[in-house]
This record gives sequence, C-alpha cells and structure tokens, in this order.
Amino acid sequence: MKTACIGTGNVGRSWAVVFARAGHDVALWDDDPAARTRAETLIAATLHDLQDDGAIASATEVMRRIRVADSLAQALAGADHVQESVSERVEIKRALLPELDAGAPPDALIASSTSAIPGSAFMTGLPGSHRCLVAHPVNPPHLIPLVELCPTPETSAQTLDRAADLFRAVGQRPIRVAREIEGFVLNRLQWALLSEAMHLIGEGYCTPEDIDEVMTSGLALRWAFLGPLAVGHLNASSGLEGYFSGLGEAIGRVRSSLRTDYVPGTETIARCHAALSARMPVETLAEEQAKRDRTLLALRTFLDRTV
Amino acid sequence: MKTACIGTGNVGRSWAVVFARAGHDVALWDDDPAARTRAETLIAATLHDLQDDGAIASATEVMRRIRVADSLAQALAGADHVQESVSERVEIKRALLPELDAGAPPDALIASSTSAIPGSAFMTGLPGSHRCLVAHPVNPPHLIPLVELCPTPETSAQTLDRAADLFRAVGQRPIRVAREIEGFVLNRLQWALLSEAMHLIGEGYCTPEDIDEVMTSGLALRWAFLGPLAVGHLNASSGLEGYFSGLGEAIGRVRSSLRTDYVPGTETIARCHAALSARMPVETLAEEQAKRDRTLLALRTFLDRTV
Repeated sequence: MKTACIGTGNVGRSWAVVFARAGHDVALWDDDPAARTRAETLIAATLHDLQDDGAIASATEVMRRIRVADSLAQALAGADHVQESVSERVEIKRALLPELDAGAPPDALIASSTSAIPGSAFMTGLPGSHRCLVAHPVNPPHLIPLVELCPTPETSAQTLDRAADLFRAVGQRPIRVAREIEGFVLNRLQWALLSEAMHLIGEGYCTPEDIDEVMTSGLALRWAFLGPLAVGHLNASSGLEGYFSGLGEAIGRVRSSLRTDYVPGTETIARCHAALSARMPVETLAEEQAKRDRTLLALRTFLDRTV
Repeated sequence: MKTACIGTGNVGRSWAVVFARAGHDVALWDDDPAARTRAETLIAATLHDLQDDGAIASATEVMRRIRVADSLAQALAGADHVQESVSERVEIKRALLPELDAGAPPDALIASSTSAIPGSAFMTGLPGSHRCLVAHPVNPPHLIPLVELCPTPETSAQTLDRAADLFRAVGQRPIRVAREIEGFVLNRLQWALLSEAMHLIGEGYCTPEDIDEVMTSGLALRWAFLGPLAVGHLNASSGLEGYFSGLGEAIGRVRSSLRTDYVPGTETIARCHAALSARMPVETLAEEQAKRDRTLLALRTFLDRTV
C-alpha cells in the first residue's frame, strides 16, 4: 500500500505516522518548501517518542517507509490512498482537489482531513468525485483513533466502505456520518458543550478553571470508557428509557434554558486564555503538547488493557 | 466529625462511604424501613470491593463508623454535617428540610445532593437557611470526586467556605456555582452535549453506537485529563485566543446550527435503548454498574499516578 500525505502540518505528519506504522509506504508533500524540509525531522522525533514509550518497536524501521516526494505528481504516482491535510481554507482546498484527482491513480481514495468545511464545498464536480470523501481525524490521529467519514452527495457507497476498511486496517476507529452537516458529529458535540461552558463563564456562574475541573473530576471519568448514552443507560435501573422518563422533566427544564448560541465576548475569551496561561504559558505549549501526547498514549494503553 | 446521611439510595450510600472512609462517624437514616435494612449490607459490599481493589485498607474498620440510626432525630443529634439524598421530588425535600433544620445542631451544615432542583425551591425561609446549600455529587461520589456547591439566595458565604473545606477534607473536589441556574454546571454541559447527540441520532446523521464511539475513541481521551478549555488551548500554537480566532468562523457556523433544544421522540429514545441493551441488557445492569465502578477506580488510580 502506498499513501500520499499532502500537507505536512501537525495533522498531516501525524497521519504519516498512522499509515507508516501500519506498513504503508508514505509519500509526503507540502507546497511550502520549509514545511517539507521540517517534516521528516519532526516525524522522526515523534517516532522516537513512540519507541521510547514502547508503542512501536523501531522508529528507524517505520521512518524507512516515509519519504518527502520531489513533486506533488511524484507523491501521488501509484498511491492507493491520498490523505489531504492542507490549510483549513476552502479556496486552497478547492484549488488543490482537481490536482489530486488528476494526479492520483483512478482507483485511489482521496480523503480530506477537514474539520469544519463540508466536503461538497471543494470535492464535487470532479471526474473522480465518487472517490472523494471527508475523513476527519482528532488531533493527533496517531494517538486518538476516531475518524469521521462523511460523504459529499457525489461520494459512492463503495468509497465509504473501502475507506472504513482502510482506516480500520491501520488501527483507527471510523464512524460514518450519513450526510453532510456543519461540524460533522464530533465538533458539534464538542462545541455544544463548549458554547454552554462559555455562557456559564461569560455570565459569571463559574470560572474557566471550574469548567475543566467539572470535566476531569466529573464528566469525563465515565465518558472515557462508556460514552454519554451508556452513562445514562447505567444511571437508571431500567436503562436509558428509565433515565429519560425519570429525568425527562429536569432535562427538559435545562434544555430550554441552555445558551449554546452564546457568542463569547473578547473579554471572556481573554479571561479564559489568561487562566489557562497561568497553568500552561503560551511559550511552553510545545512542551505541554508533548506531555499531552505522552499522557494520551499511556491512557490508551490503560484503557485497552482495562475496559 | 459526625455526618448524618439522610436517604440511603445509591447516592446516599455512596456518600456514607465517602465520609466514613475519611474518618467521620456516619449515621444513616431513610424513611423507608426496607431501604434502612438493606443499607448496611450494600455499603459493606461496596467497602469490600474497595478493599479487594486496594483502595481502602480495611472494610471492617470503615464499616465500624457507619450505623443506621433508630430515628431521624437520633441520626441528626450531634451531627456536624447533614447530607440529604432523598428522592428527587421537590415536595418530599420541601417537607423534610424543616425537620433537618430543627433536628440538626445549629452550627451543622445541611447539604442537599439534588441534581436538578434549585435549592431555593426547598431550602429557603427556614430559621437555618443560611447553613443550607446544594452539594451535587456525580454518581457514584465515592469514585467520582467532583461536587458542585450552589447557594440559595439565603446561603451565607461562610457556609460555602465551610462546605468547600469539608468536601476537600474528605477527598472530593468541590467547585462553586456563583448563583442558582437550572442543572448547575455539570448537567448543563452534559445535557447540552446529550441533546445535540439526540438530535443527530433522531435526524439520522449517525447511530447511537457512533455517539458513544465519538466520545470513547475521540473527545474523552483528551477531556479525561485536560478538560475542554485546556484542549483548545493546546490545539493552537498561540493558546485559547488563537483557537477561537483561528476557528471562530467555523465554531460560529456550527453554533448557529446546533439543535440543543431538540426534544427526542419516543421512537428515538427506544432505538437508543435497544442499541445499548444489545451490549448491556437491562437484567445485567447491576453487574455492568459494578464493572463501571471497578473501571472508574482503576482509571482514577491511573490518572492520579500519571497526570
């Protein structure tokens, strides 16, 4: 299997690790020469961290399968899969997709990592639109397995099946979004919660620190291995139907008072930023991200063994 | 320290474990004789599970501090703290609170475990309303440390300070909700997410299984140790302000399309219930709850050691 990773920012480099770790030959390409130059060094560093933590046997062995191509055309030549992770700007993706479609072999899949642009805004009307889809990962995909597959109206059913098989084969956990919707599933859930959180902070009900505490000392302890529906199912003696019938009235009162349409003011965002920066100063974010990644790896190992 | 745990359902019994584990003498009371009779046996079983898992040294030692009282008056006599966990019905709580206020020593704290009833609906207008507050736990509190402290308009500042100290001293992690709001903080965040999830299932965007997968293989892996604001802070090179400025437009588009006011139909709830019951049949929920509790304990031990 040969995979072309187009765009070598954080997401594209992490995808390269996912595919190469699973045995694919990976060709990297980025229009920015500086990004291309950095890519191999940064990926090698990630692989060495994974080797140090025992998640892969040999960084050198995996790195041998990853190479920066001499051109976009060379990256795409002979690819079975193309993973596009360029800047999250629709005009850039719209200019690039025809090139990917023209350059990749006719039976290659073309998947975009976009987190917030519906695929139909840039991957329709092409000769090969049937083999184009969104495959939205969570940052960083080499440590977080979820990937959301979302078709455009022109994506074929076979493309979705093939993509699900391919992502499962490289160790990811795909879900399928039946049709396009802003933010797919994950970001809708994330931003529903985050919007209400910003409302509570902005209107003075609690502090930014409280929100993270409610999650890490409360909600996420069950969600990490059960998910929100399973939590409800286990919180009533007669399962989820009992949960909704027992709490229905209370849920209804809260639901009608939610403010997930709340637009946080600049001052509220600045206050949250300041609270977080007190714990994690902006100039230390690279270290904090590395720490996050080590914890993620340990957490997944723990959950795989325990649940 | 003596604590009276009034109401011996799941939540009240778990509170008894929290307080007795921390060295309090705990008096139990429930108006239902059958619940009183069962309480000690069930608490002893929980303590033995904790001992088996190495979380406490001796179940017998902790159990020695827990006793069912002969009457409500006896349970309250000499108490430093009263934790009310009776049925989640406002008329029951409204009838009980004057008794708790009259029976408990004048300087005892009186905390209600209510998850969805604002305290002012049942703990105001009493001689001792200043020492009454909501202390909303997460089920089960002996394994999930978060507790939300929420005053009524009549709760004194000193009561909130004393309650925060008391809950921290017994190993919980209190946050303060500045003033009353439906669902406090935790359930507002939980039900914002759950309501959007029911919208996505109800309108056919994804399956119930997908929602739990998005959480356990995606969102919760970072939320378990960072929280939602810290995740955003680490997802942009310039921190949370960069996250909002970079993604602001996309967040705005999603925010204005959220349907957290969505009322799921009976058919949608039944479909979710059926999907969950295929994995966790209702007749096995007690076992599944025990399994959840073992995993929670292991997860907390892991997080305490790792983060």
